[in-house]
Amino acid sequence: MAARPADTPRGRVPRAEREQQMLDAAVLVFSRRGFHHANMDEIAELSGVSKPMVYAYLGTKEELFIACLRRESARLVAGLAAAADPTLPPDQQLWRGLKGFFEFVGAHRDGWSVLYRQARTQQPFSVEVAAMRESVVEVITDRLDAALRLEGRQVKPDDLTAMALTLVGASESLADWLADHPDEDPGRTATRLMNAVWLGADQLMRGVSWRPPA
Amino acid sequence: MAARPADTPRGRVPRAEREQQMLDAAVLVFSRRGFHHANMDEIAELSGVSKPMVYAYLGTKEELFIACLRRESARLVAGLAAAADPTLPPDQQLWRGLKGFFEFVGAHRDGWSVLYRQARTQQPFSVEVAAMRESVVEVITDRLDAALRLEGRQVKPDDLTAMALTLVGASESLADWLADHPDEDPGRTATRLMNAVWLGADQLMRGVSWRPPA
Repeated sequence: MAARPADTPRGRVPRAEREQQMLDAAVLVFSRRGFHHANMDEIAELSGVSKPMVYAYLGTKEELFIACLRRESARLVAGLAAAADPTLPPDQQLWRGLKGFFEFVGAHRDGWSVLYRQARTQQPFSVEVAAMRESVVEVITDRLDAALRLEGRQVKPDDLTAMALTLVGASESLADWLADHPDEDPGRTATRLMNAVWLGADQLMRGVSWRPPA
Repeated sequence: MAARPADTPRGRVPRAEREQQMLDAAVLVFSRRGFHHANMDEIAELSGVSKPMVYAYLGTKEELFIACLRRESARLVAGLAAAADPTLPPDQQLWRGLKGFFEFVGAHRDGWSVLYRQARTQQPFSVEVAAMRESVVEVITDRLDAALRLEGRQVKPDDLTAMALTLVGASESLADWLADHPDEDPGRTATRLMNAVWLGADQLMRGVSWRPPA
């Protein structure tokens, strides 16, 4: 079947696909306008449906914003999980995870700035962001645990959690910076963090630096 | 002069001292109640002055909250600056800075949870928090630069900023965790972060670990 013409009747587009179109439009509008100034008319228009249909499918503006947050965070978590191939050496797993994350942020600078920062600094969305952050911390904790076990080591749960929190906090901090610096390459940001957390400041100060695999 | 009796007339207490008492009371009330549920009557009562005097000295509830934030952040920055004795080796400077920070958070768990987290997740305070965070990043960038120069090395400004952002992001992340875990010792948290960023994960995975100076 050829690409669907723009005037295809609504009924022809499956619900799931229609929802994704609405979410694409909503992410764009929330990113450009911010939550408070975004309006549902623009979102409806961009997704090519009526405003009542947006409400019927995805609820109020607040519910729609939360749906955007959830989709973006699910994409991010899936990306992290896919990046970390457990057959690779631990530094390469970490490198791929970080690179995947910073590329995600680099490709969605507006989305990161507005969706994540905005959500983090506004109730009730901050609760949602805290939950998605926790699931990322869990994924990373599990990965670290698996990598250490492969090396024949076992680390106390609190130590693993602290390590994952260090990585997540440092990554968020650098992601905000990356979102503000369009000239910065996401791979470069990932390398900076590898140098900080993989090698450690001690090595860095001796002039040793970590390089991505060729 | 002996300690001032509780019934000293208001006029006898110098303005600066009176303001500090009001701020002490405000931090406590904001911490216990949260910004929205805190009320000025309770703050006035706790500082032993009338409500109009609180307004006259420190302005609206919003201005008072910002004054609290500024005082706490100034204390924190002063603490960090004092901790980092430039004559010490770099790892000990970092250790003292981190230990000072986590002890600050450990001693003011409520203050950190409510003032910082609350402020970070609510406009217009989030702007204020972003500014105080930037000043911390600057202090750390300068310290890193000084430490590297002492070792005869010079690093590009962006690399220094990225390292400082890594430290600050990781520290915030662990501070939130520390605030939620009353059993965790602040020195232990500082050691965890030293292990992550000073030694690097590579060393950690080999079982090497950093220990605080005796």
